[in-house]
Amino acid sequence: MSRKHLHLNAFLMSTGHHEASWRLPESDPYATTDVRHYQELARIAERGKLDSVFFADSPQLWGDIGRRPSGSLEPTVVLTAIAAVTTRIGLIATASTTYNEPYNLARRFASVDHVSGGRAGWNIVTTAGIEAARNFNLDELPAHRARYERADEFLEVSRKLWDSWDDDAALGDKASGVWGDNDRVRPIDHRGPHFRVAGPLNVPRSPQGYPVLVQAGSSEDGRDFAARHAEAVFTAQQTLDDARAFYADVKLRAARLGRDPDSVRILPGIVPVLGDTEAEAAALEAELDRLIVPEYARDQLAKTLRVAPGDLPLDAELPADLPSEDEIEGAKSRYTLIVELARRERLTVRQLIGRLGGGRGHRTFTGTPVQVADAIEEWSAAGAADGFNIMPAVLPSGLTSFVDKVVPILRERGLFRHDYEGTTLREHYGLARPANRYAKAVAA
Amino acid sequence: MSRKHLHLNAFLMSTGHHEASWRLPESDPYATTDVRHYQELARIAERGKLDSVFFADSPQLWGDIGRRPSGSLEPTVVLTAIAAVTTRIGLIATASTTYNEPYNLARRFASVDHVSGGRAGWNIVTTAGIEAARNFNLDELPAHRARYERADEFLEVSRKLWDSWDDDAALGDKASGVWGDNDRVRPIDHRGPHFRVAGPLNVPRSPQGYPVLVQAGSSEDGRDFAARHAEAVFTAQQTLDDARAFYADVKLRAARLGRDPDSVRILPGIVPVLGDTEAEAAALEAELDRLIVPEYARDQLAKTLRVAPGDLPLDAELPADLPSEDEIEGAKSRYTLIVELARRERLTVRQLIGRLGGGRGHRTFTGTPVQVADAIEEWSAAGAADGFNIMPAVLPSGLTSFVDKVVPILRERGLFRHDYEGTTLREHYGLARPANRYAKAVAA
Repeated sequence: MSRKHLHLNAFLMSTGHHEASWRLPESDPYATTDVRHYQELARIAERGKLDSVFFADSPQLWGDIGRRPSGSLEPTVVLTAIAAVTTRIGLIATASTTYNEPYNLARRFASVDHVSGGRAGWNIVTTAGIEAARNFNLDELPAHRARYERADEFLEVSRKLWDSWDDDAALGDKASGVWGDNDRVRPIDHRGPHFRVAGPLNVPRSPQGYPVLVQAGSSEDGRDFAARHAEAVFTAQQTLDDARAFYADVKLRAARLGRDPDSVRILPGIVPVLGDTEAEAAALEAELDRLIVPEYARDQLAKTLRVAPGDLPLDAELPADLPSEDEIEGAKSRYTLIVELARRERLTVRQLIGRLGGGRGHRTFTGTPVQVADAIEEWSAAGAADGFNIMPAVLPSGLTSFVDKVVPILRERGLFRHDYEGTTLREHYGLARPANRYAKAVAA
Repeated sequence: MSRKHLHLNAFLMSTGHHEASWRLPESDPYATTDVRHYQELARIAERGKLDSVFFADSPQLWGDIGRRPSGSLEPTVVLTAIAAVTTRIGLIATASTTYNEPYNLARRFASVDHVSGGRAGWNIVTTAGIEAARNFNLDELPAHRARYERADEFLEVSRKLWDSWDDDAALGDKASGVWGDNDRVRPIDHRGPHFRVAGPLNVPRSPQGYPVLVQAGSSEDGRDFAARHAEAVFTAQQTLDDARAFYADVKLRAARLGRDPDSVRILPGIVPVLGDTEAEAAALEAELDRLIVPEYARDQLAKTLRVAPGDLPLDAELPADLPSEDEIEGAKSRYTLIVELARRERLTVRQLIGRLGGGRGHRTFTGTPVQVADAIEEWSAAGAADGFNIMPAVLPSGLTSFVDKVVPILRERGLFRHDYEGTTLREHYGLARPANRYAKAVAA
């Protein structure tokens, strides 16, 4: 049986995904604003021949800066700095359709794609959180549905702009003095309920045509959006059954829209906590959990759950009367996942905080390299994943361990590439380069 | 007499500022989207110990792509790629206050400042041109005055955001588990006619505090804006008298607002066309002008002058009945400069096109390295300039010649640094690091 290779994305965040990772002796607490930290992480990922690195983002400061390293450089800036010191690794940045204009953002991703030689990806988010809205002239968070409607049109405008130049519009004909063919560049004249954009874009069509389009929300609206637009989906799934159901559901939704289900790659998150022995891995996990300041974490949990911190005694289970998902206007799927995790495993608030401290709702897996490789293979073989979003608990050491100890096992099992076969992010993910809807046939 | 050193900025553009530069045998007609081209230019500028490199920008495609290399990468992306391969050269990008949101842009410049170790500068523009407006949901260009009012508030919001973190807000106290001091980060709660922004910014205060604030419009509104906000001013001036008057006027306006006139550096543009002999320089200029396609250039001139191309016969002077500056809603000072240049020197349209083809209204100076150094020294000694915006007609060769042949002469004359004395753009320009308006005194 020929096995398909997995796709592996390294989700980078400060000193690691565990909220207490910055307190370990090895960690630089100022790494968040140190571009060399991220350049080094990307070099490690590229050494492992991973598909891509990825940064989450939201245009707001998250809560309490006491708790953990706060503030973050704008991701397209960091990825551009990474592009300059790497040659193959894909570069995926989150950016919001609610708080940007399509002309600016389509141009920025086209620019990153040019600068990186075709390695750009865009994780499309609609941005939950009233805090972000208040930074953009709004007093209320726009409703979930309204944000997704805007996002749909934002994508439509972006695609038109990326197609506003034919790939062969530039002629560079020095002899005749004609640089470009005006017939191969055209306005888009988009007029819709949210945007009126004349175009054309002021950047020639980029190496990949479009950046790889990524999506990470798992609500009903999010899944429909993914089925329409996404080429890769990052998702938080705690159990194999849930992950398989999600995988099948998104592929089905895409197929119903006439898309090839293989044109949507689904990557659940996994937070590996690695040790050379089970005891070493467990000790690292225990040390990290010991370093969580529970009062800080409880405040954050209370905010997510829309209750007062006083309603969450540390050694009791969650209160019975929490809001339903319908009442949540942002990050719906994350909310439900957290509540279901706590109820299913009857976790106390303190235990829940430990589990969330590792991966904010993503699946934490503590074990040896072989056990982590087994866990990855199991989900992949069971039809729950085309690849994984690797979220090391501690950075850089967790990424180094994954690349040097887990990746070789995946290779031995025929599950992962030995080297890059292409140069672009689309080639790494096995995704087609999009045709240009407007392009004229070249005269024979 | 102790002489102050000049400040030299390299204004980078594709294959050079002469519109026909791309047709020379040495030029790569695809350089515009090749980041290695710009990285190489920045290395040359850094080898010459220049203060900074700079990119102009507008979120629109400029007219006819037949005429010259068109489309341009987003400048903060290019400058970030440059930052990764240089260590000292300052990095100035144009960005529009009319077509951005302050939270996004303040964050992007803070991010570039972090990534570059304190080398970011922002050329603040309000963006003339209906074409840009039509890419941002507008059918009309907002009025000149209205754009400047928005720009004022945009700057106010940006400064507040850059000050929303104290320099010492991050504590990184691993032992106690307290990463940052919540009392040293605060919302800005800005509510004005154009913007409502809660803050704080989601990036810690950057190495320079603020990017160096640059301005380049010379209209009445533009000069007032420069006097209020700018730390460096780029300006197009054709004659020494005009340049001296402009210099004195902007310094006076700044002084009237209580600012130290030395805190505003004024840099007129100069397009050097260099040859080792006068004959060589003249031959290069003639070759470049021969390569202009006059019909393309006339179309552009007609657009600038708000007349039909048919109203501009190539071998006649400009028509007498052109609009007054008051009727122009964008790029007012550029319009007046072009009309005055043509009238003063009684240029035919063809001659005017040759002059504008070199520098789009900036002063073209053709000569030997000594003659260019003389021209620079003359304006500097006459109180017309604190430095110059160097706009090579051809890139990279024009920048290489300037750095290797003109800069050494300026050094011999005591007019330019032998090496960098600092690491930040503010240090290169001799500008103070801004204090934080909100910062608390640190407890003794």
